[in-house]
Amino acid sequence: MNSPGINDILDAAHRISAYVHHTPILTSSSINEILKSEIYFKCENLQKVGAFKYRGATNAVQQLTSTQLQHGVATHSSGNHAQALALAAKIKNAKAYIVMPNNAPKIKKEAVIGYGAEVIECEPTLEARESTLNQILEEKNAHFIHPYNDYRIVAGQATAAKELIEDTPELDYMIAPVGGGGLLSGTALSAHYFSPNIKVIGAEPTGADDAFRSLKAGKIIPSYKPQTIADGLLTSLGDRTFPIIQKFVEQILTVEDSMIIQAMKLIWQRMKIIVEPSAAVPLAVVMKNQPYFEKKKIGIILSGGNVDLDKLPF
Amino acid sequence: MNSPGINDILDAAHRISAYVHHTPILTSSSINEILKSEIYFKCENLQKVGAFKYRGATNAVQQLTSTQLQHGVATHSSGNHAQALALAAKIKNAKAYIVMPNNAPKIKKEAVIGYGAEVIECEPTLEARESTLNQILEEKNAHFIHPYNDYRIVAGQATAAKELIEDTPELDYMIAPVGGGGLLSGTALSAHYFSPNIKVIGAEPTGADDAFRSLKAGKIIPSYKPQTIADGLLTSLGDRTFPIIQKFVEQILTVEDSMIIQAMKLIWQRMKIIVEPSAAVPLAVVMKNQPYFEKKKIGIILSGGNVDLDKLPF
Repeated sequence: MNSPGINDILDAAHRISAYVHHTPILTSSSINEILKSEIYFKCENLQKVGAFKYRGATNAVQQLTSTQLQHGVATHSSGNHAQALALAAKIKNAKAYIVMPNNAPKIKKEAVIGYGAEVIECEPTLEARESTLNQILEEKNAHFIHPYNDYRIVAGQATAAKELIEDTPELDYMIAPVGGGGLLSGTALSAHYFSPNIKVIGAEPTGADDAFRSLKAGKIIPSYKPQTIADGLLTSLGDRTFPIIQKFVEQILTVEDSMIIQAMKLIWQRMKIIVEPSAAVPLAVVMKNQPYFEKKKIGIILSGGNVDLDKLPF
Repeated sequence: MNSPGINDILDAAHRISAYVHHTPILTSSSINEILKSEIYFKCENLQKVGAFKYRGATNAVQQLTSTQLQHGVATHSSGNHAQALALAAKIKNAKAYIVMPNNAPKIKKEAVIGYGAEVIECEPTLEARESTLNQILEEKNAHFIHPYNDYRIVAGQATAAKELIEDTPELDYMIAPVGGGGLLSGTALSAHYFSPNIKVIGAEPTGADDAFRSLKAGKIIPSYKPQTIADGLLTSLGDRTFPIIQKFVEQILTVEDSMIIQAMKLIWQRMKIIVEPSAAVPLAVVMKNQPYFEKKKIGIILSGGNVDLDKLPF
């Protein structure tokens, strides 16, 4: 399969429509006043499982044959993709095997188990993760669904931006956070197909700026010991997401954790919605570059809202 | 003016439509699964100023003559009505005078001042509040807009339930929290006019159950030293809201603070939205009376989201 075409995204939107929330777009006059711009927040924190990841996972699982579903699906993730795949599989009465590092927060493990998936723990190293996953794939003959480096996932994530484009006046910019690049590449494809004048920007923490460095270098530079509060954005770009980002994303802007926390608190206080740190990175980028975005119409994808209420950074 | 008729509510909806958010209605499969019912949350926490109060205040202010607006508006409130009136007045370039007890949280005073209103402090007694307000009304010739005991306010608050009725499949119940009764009486009127099969229930903390006792006694019993975490529901019913509630509300259900906190946390965790304790009282009532509401379609008005993030009860 090639990089998703317009029909892949249209098909994905149609395929998942009965399962995902068409999430609301919210605006805040006070945030607009502070930043002197017009921001439209696409609330994927209000998506099922609390994150956009449910779009991609649903798009992938819904395409499996009944034989594939019988053997179940598998992935490695300690984040939102784990919950998303667990629920997408449950909807189809399929088993989900989720490989998680044994130091993952208990609350995340329990959430995945709560959606009926089986958690397989491994040592918190890349090698252990891959060998454990391969063992599961072999033993169970399960179908692997990568968190982002998979065109079905990219096409599914693209549907968030497609809705954002359809539900707002014409935007100047769309900004999405970038970790592995599934959401950002999907967002860029939707802009390209459905509203090509919109410039797409990736928002990245300075402490995990592998996408910024990769675009500069013209090749994938994996993240090395990333450190940021935006724990959904620690991963490196994949060989499927990187070329799309290279071709269709205008630029990556980076921002420090302190401003990410400030943006997160602003969203909580002014908009009365819960976003996780990763979801606040796009607004932090607008705050940092306020003059650049002044008077512009900006669509921001609020990627998720899964945060431990007992461990707030403010 | 008599108790609001159907045209008063239709007019209010029309009058305020350019100023208020048509707030989204959210559902949560996990909350539905836990309670074995179908709940539709009308998100007035996502309304401007973070509460339904902006509907009523806008409906009142928008009806004033230019002479009245020149002299400004006034009220006593340390809660959401204060912010609502301040912003509604600002939109019309009118002054707002807000009488607040001198022990009101600084954060609330600052929010009101942030909307351009003038705060007049008084001793935290009923007498001081009334004499201070009367002084302002006389000195400034300002127009008094009561937080709830005013038919323009009731008709404005009724528009939230009107939207809820229009945007959902036919409901069995609508539940609103009750303090002074502005929201509950408006909700009951909208059910009566637009979908008379819906039963309307008031949700009240046991620590401030004056509405429950008033309905039982057949006359207004003012609240006496109310104690509850739901700080928006401390006020007593008014002589304009009580008769409407008496006539059109099926019953008042009360619930303890511990369950209100539990309901509040459930909404934050599962729905990724911020609600204040008062807004969680209707869900707490459903939790407490789960068998009664089983398999029912329930509309809940989430009244507000103004909570101090540094002082969470969980």
